[in-house]
Amino acid sequence: MSKFKQIGRPKPLLDGFDKVTGRTRYAPDLTVPGMLHGRFVTSPHAHASIKNIDVSAALEVPGVTAVLTAADLPDIAPTARSRLLLARDKVIFAGQPVALVLAEDLGAAQDAVDKVWVDYEMLPAVVTLDEALADDAPLVWPSGMPGETGEAAAHGADVGGDKKEKKPSNIAGESKFARGDLAEGFAAADVVVERPFTTAMVHQSYLETFAMLVQPDPMGQGATVWTSTQAPFYVREEVADVLGVEETAVRVIPTSVGGAFGAKFLHYELLIAVAAQAVNRPVKLALTRSEDMLAANPAPSARFRIKLGMKQDGTITALEADVTFDTGCYPSEHGIAAFLMGSLYQIPHLEIRYTEVLTHKLSTAAYRAPGAPQAAFVLESTIDEAARQLNLDPIAVRLQNASQPGDPMAHGKPWSTMGMTEVLQRLQDHPAWQNRAEARAKGRGVGIALGGWPGGIEPTAASCQLHRDGTLHVHVGSVDLTGTTTGFSLIAAEAFGVTPDRVRVISGDTATASFAGATGGSKITYMVGPSVIKAAQDARQQVMEIAANELEADVADMEVVDGCVQVKGVPDRAIQLEDIAQKTMRFGGKYAPVVGNGRHANTTNSPGFAAQLAEVSVDAETGEVTVHKLVVVQDVGQVINPLTLEGQIMGGAMQGLGWALYEQMAHDSYGTPLTGSWMDYNVPHFIHAVPEFEAVFVEVPTEFGPFGARGAGEPPIIATAAAVGNAIADATQARLADLPMTAPRVIAALKR
Amino acid sequence: MSKFKQIGRPKPLLDGFDKVTGRTRYAPDLTVPGMLHGRFVTSPHAHASIKNIDVSAALEVPGVTAVLTAADLPDIAPTARSRLLLARDKVIFAGQPVALVLAEDLGAAQDAVDKVWVDYEMLPAVVTLDEALADDAPLVWPSGMPGETGEAAAHGADVGGDKKEKKPSNIAGESKFARGDLAEGFAAADVVVERPFTTAMVHQSYLETFAMLVQPDPMGQGATVWTSTQAPFYVREEVADVLGVEETAVRVIPTSVGGAFGAKFLHYELLIAVAAQAVNRPVKLALTRSEDMLAANPAPSARFRIKLGMKQDGTITALEADVTFDTGCYPSEHGIAAFLMGSLYQIPHLEIRYTEVLTHKLSTAAYRAPGAPQAAFVLESTIDEAARQLNLDPIAVRLQNASQPGDPMAHGKPWSTMGMTEVLQRLQDHPAWQNRAEARAKGRGVGIALGGWPGGIEPTAASCQLHRDGTLHVHVGSVDLTGTTTGFSLIAAEAFGVTPDRVRVISGDTATASFAGATGGSKITYMVGPSVIKAAQDARQQVMEIAANELEADVADMEVVDGCVQVKGVPDRAIQLEDIAQKTMRFGGKYAPVVGNGRHANTTNSPGFAAQLAEVSVDAETGEVTVHKLVVVQDVGQVINPLTLEGQIMGGAMQGLGWALYEQMAHDSYGTPLTGSWMDYNVPHFIHAVPEFEAVFVEVPTEFGPFGARGAGEPPIIATAAAVGNAIADATQARLADLPMTAPRVIAALKR
Repeated sequence: MSKFKQIGRPKPLLDGFDKVTGRTRYAPDLTVPGMLHGRFVTSPHAHASIKNIDVSAALEVPGVTAVLTAADLPDIAPTARSRLLLARDKVIFAGQPVALVLAEDLGAAQDAVDKVWVDYEMLPAVVTLDEALADDAPLVWPSGMPGETGEAAAHGADVGGDKKEKKPSNIAGESKFARGDLAEGFAAADVVVERPFTTAMVHQSYLETFAMLVQPDPMGQGATVWTSTQAPFYVREEVADVLGVEETAVRVIPTSVGGAFGAKFLHYELLIAVAAQAVNRPVKLALTRSEDMLAANPAPSARFRIKLGMKQDGTITALEADVTFDTGCYPSEHGIAAFLMGSLYQIPHLEIRYTEVLTHKLSTAAYRAPGAPQAAFVLESTIDEAARQLNLDPIAVRLQNASQPGDPMAHGKPWSTMGMTEVLQRLQDHPAWQNRAEARAKGRGVGIALGGWPGGIEPTAASCQLHRDGTLHVHVGSVDLTGTTTGFSLIAAEAFGVTPDRVRVISGDTATASFAGATGGSKITYMVGPSVIKAAQDARQQVMEIAANELEADVADMEVVDGCVQVKGVPDRAIQLEDIAQKTMRFGGKYAPVVGNGRHANTTNSPGFAAQLAEVSVDAETGEVTVHKLVVVQDVGQVINPLTLEGQIMGGAMQGLGWALYEQMAHDSYGTPLTGSWMDYNVPHFIHAVPEFEAVFVEVPTEFGPFGARGAGEPPIIATAAAVGNAIADATQARLADLPMTAPRVIAALKR
Repeated sequence: MSKFKQIGRPKPLLDGFDKVTGRTRYAPDLTVPGMLHGRFVTSPHAHASIKNIDVSAALEVPGVTAVLTAADLPDIAPTARSRLLLARDKVIFAGQPVALVLAEDLGAAQDAVDKVWVDYEMLPAVVTLDEALADDAPLVWPSGMPGETGEAAAHGADVGGDKKEKKPSNIAGESKFARGDLAEGFAAADVVVERPFTTAMVHQSYLETFAMLVQPDPMGQGATVWTSTQAPFYVREEVADVLGVEETAVRVIPTSVGGAFGAKFLHYELLIAVAAQAVNRPVKLALTRSEDMLAANPAPSARFRIKLGMKQDGTITALEADVTFDTGCYPSEHGIAAFLMGSLYQIPHLEIRYTEVLTHKLSTAAYRAPGAPQAAFVLESTIDEAARQLNLDPIAVRLQNASQPGDPMAHGKPWSTMGMTEVLQRLQDHPAWQNRAEARAKGRGVGIALGGWPGGIEPTAASCQLHRDGTLHVHVGSVDLTGTTTGFSLIAAEAFGVTPDRVRVISGDTATASFAGATGGSKITYMVGPSVIKAAQDARQQVMEIAANELEADVADMEVVDGCVQVKGVPDRAIQLEDIAQKTMRFGGKYAPVVGNGRHANTTNSPGFAAQLAEVSVDAETGEVTVHKLVVVQDVGQVINPLTLEGQIMGGAMQGLGWALYEQMAHDSYGTPLTGSWMDYNVPHFIHAVPEFEAVFVEVPTEFGPFGARGAGEPPIIATAAAVGNAIADATQARLADLPMTAPRVIAALKR
């Protein structure tokens, strides 16, 4: 029997009913009276000077209130993509907003967009890594690189490494992890695998595009911002900064997020805030799918060259790699790809070089475990190939080289508590692996791969109040992306001593909640959960003190049972929670309101590992890959809510399938986007792409997480593409080295 | 030298600059796009049936969106004046809203009001107490009295006493305080004074009339309510109830209040909330002065009969009184008038009967120390007259009979800590009293009187957060009426250890603050202050712990100095508060956000007493009374901010002058209001009415208030009218027994 009363019991998403019945109102659904609709005029060119913008015809369209250009907005430094408000003098990618039409209705706005005339003078664009790195390459930022964006850091992706000083170029950053002596390492190897890899620019493909509504405060200062964001406090900080008001004058209400996956930290909120301020009207912007695909924040493409040595006994002796990310027109720190490649296994000799390069394409940003699926695809494919050449068991090889808690990572600091070995062992025991011969007998291949995510840390606070109806309202500063609200209702219920129906969780509103950082880095349950526990325990102590006083008993003898506080084991001597609450909020009341508070910080992350197994078949004629089975064995520390956890792991793995087989954003040689809609961009479809799926929970508890839980959001996406690639190799002996592994590429590999 | 660094130092109102320069946006100033303006169709009759309402012509006025009548609104029980939304079938006072026009602009709304046709059938109205108490009187509530309103209780005015069961009548409540044997008491007296008194219906005469703006939530549930209220949490509770949503779905943002004085707890907010819900548009209502005077919440008129016996040695032997309040069409508990008459002095034999009567007039409610100015006028005039007849010193008589802490009040419970004796002694020593012979030599009279207010108690909580810029933001649930925000900035600064410019106080927003009850009952500094201290001390402890860790020192050795936390006496080992804050709110930070919390409740009130002296002259020909000097000696426990305190005391005393000499709302025999504007209703004018004024602070600290402070809002209004009446008697030997003491009444008294 579980030691918990609420934790670990399956609880459907609290907002699930509203979502499946269409009741949830997402940001694009919001309207306030007097609201204007915004619509962008965007650049068709990847690189051009703006000679003139003529808005006069657009302004004559009935219903159009304003057509804003950069000249109408404050001239803030474009140090981050979110601060590149409207193009000023120059465009640096196709799809970049040049003007913003504001109109009473969307039709008028769209009509007016077509009547804005922009005179461009085209400039040469760098589109590929080779073009960008050429000696005489046109520079994306000839006057110097814009500042760091902060999003990468907030995602746990900034892990350090030695950084070189930058020279005027399109290189936004370089770093290196090194130890030992490569020559010695490769000399000791019995086999050396050396190979280039590439991975595609991939869009997060949230169902809900970017959308926000900004309403200027009728009291004259600040604004209310409804936005589909992962990072309300970050939005608040930035909006307050560009509006020139105190942070508390801006209220950010994060709306239900229809998918984010790392993309939705901050994008057009600053632009819409200054636009709303300029016209003193509420302004809504909801991107079309095409606008979103042309100018949002997808994952960057990357190019790798890897060289790995292995001895016949399975020891990895040396690893050398060049990791080059094309992050579009803004920097986007993905050095963690290099870090992870050098950290998962204990390799005595390694050198991994990371280079970040800018091109005249849309900016890129975080996508669930940013950099890790790419790194895992490259590293895990290479290890698989080495093991295959040496005829070694791929799980055994990984177990043999696996880092253990305390072992050094690429930067020399030790690994924290983690279940890397445990997930490999559990997968080893799994029927899908044990019975792989049966699958092979059917002509299928079985591949496995491993992925891990360090997990972010960020201080949090939470509070709770007991309301007149006896419910405990918990305020957390974090946005619910994956069911954390439901999880917190279990966590608070467990800690307070009630059933979850007596708990309400209010998420992310910057006016009502304490700071909790952005939802990203697999850190919400991990970092906010402990604050929720402390807050609920604090409130529990308070209600027990009040009840003890009312019942003339000792606080130590009180317990919370069935919505009452009672003398332990004596239900006759009890007081209902609603009665307690009412005593604290009335004239002449003798007890202070029940307000529980929790504050939490720690300096120890708790990495999450997932081992994956894919069972595939390959149609040698068409090149089509069919994934029949996908098993994800993940260390979650402690299951809080098995229902949402399974959904989260499955969702991650399905996105991993997108990386593996389907998704790539493409540009032509001029930098013109070729994938401007889901007609051109292939996401996994439920009917065709979803295999038999199993999520297996491993519980290696961490003392730092709530009730032992560790972050679970990022790990399940990481190893999928590698597992599928290894399964293809198992089935066909052909090694795929480019993502996505589309049918033409499979055909080509089979022919090699 | 003060033991405090910040407390007791004069600090101008933080919002003073904005107020005097017209920057403050009050509720009537607010606009949100798409907002409708509301305007009432009101009843011209005091009592009538509604036969028909024809809105068709009104609906044709361009710009009119809707004309709502009771039929368009939920049929909620009118258990309180605020729940009497629009008249349904019947009107019970002249000025009662019958329909609500909603239009795009105010002009259209007003035009449409004139085109709503209401067919009334007039019914007989009871207007006076005698009519209301007659055997066959028409009943204001023939089907039974509406529920208690709660406002009286929330004002500290519900003090118990034996209550009789009610019979079908216009009597809303009866109670009695009695002890000893009246016959014995009067038999022991050397002089018995017996006299009727009356006091007028008086309007609070706030500069800002009732105003509110309700915006339905674009997320689909609840609403945001901006309103000029003293009681945001009460407004939230009630609005949520009538909208049928959870309390947290309603956000009440109390706007800067342009005067309230007890009137602005809840009035039209429920009506406007259901109206906004009905049309799904933001709706603003801002009453005209006339609408406000016809249908808001003034203080009730009252009738007294008092009989008091005194011995030659100054002992008060007996007190008998009938106290009858005419509270208009709704009950409004004012039994505290009877309670105070029986509590201030230790009188062995007393019986005081309180009766509350309804009439077909507008409802009444609390006005600063509700019931106390009336009670003080009656009791202090009578004691003065008895002392005068016995040729006794009026201050000495009061000191002789004054209750002491621990003595029984009218209901038998003991007086708490108080400075009743101390304020009388300080007044006795004051030059204005010591030199009264000089004033009399100029033909003037000098009168004194005493007033006290028990002071309310209500649990509170407060929180504070250290922000990135190093400022401490304090959230309190109370509305600032009298400078409490400025006071809390001193209190928080003192407790946290910074200067007040590093403190921001955010008041009363129900979404951001913990519960604090309504601003009323002289309890905000007294009850919220301790929560602010605790919250700031909690935050102080947290920053000292972080600093100690950063500076590798012991927490016990830390101090907060000049915006830094430093090792005591070692400014070189210091860390700035902004640096501390930033360490708590960033990815990877190792310290939890600084969130301080305070919760406070106590069961002990700390009454506030004020003795007043008036020096007057009376023009025997015109009856005009000129007040030359007014001195208020008030026990405030501990001065927090002498500037605002002096203003508050002066403001109260000036309102007391209004009660004394100028203000009365009148109705004709049909119940038609005769005082519908400030043309007809006489408030004290600055040029003519304001005398030489002095506020004297007495500090009898209470262990229950913040740094010793006690409530200061209500005491200064109480004794003014009595002091002026006693001064008139001193000057003329004539006793005025009716408020206000207008020139015709003075002439009549002089003639007696």
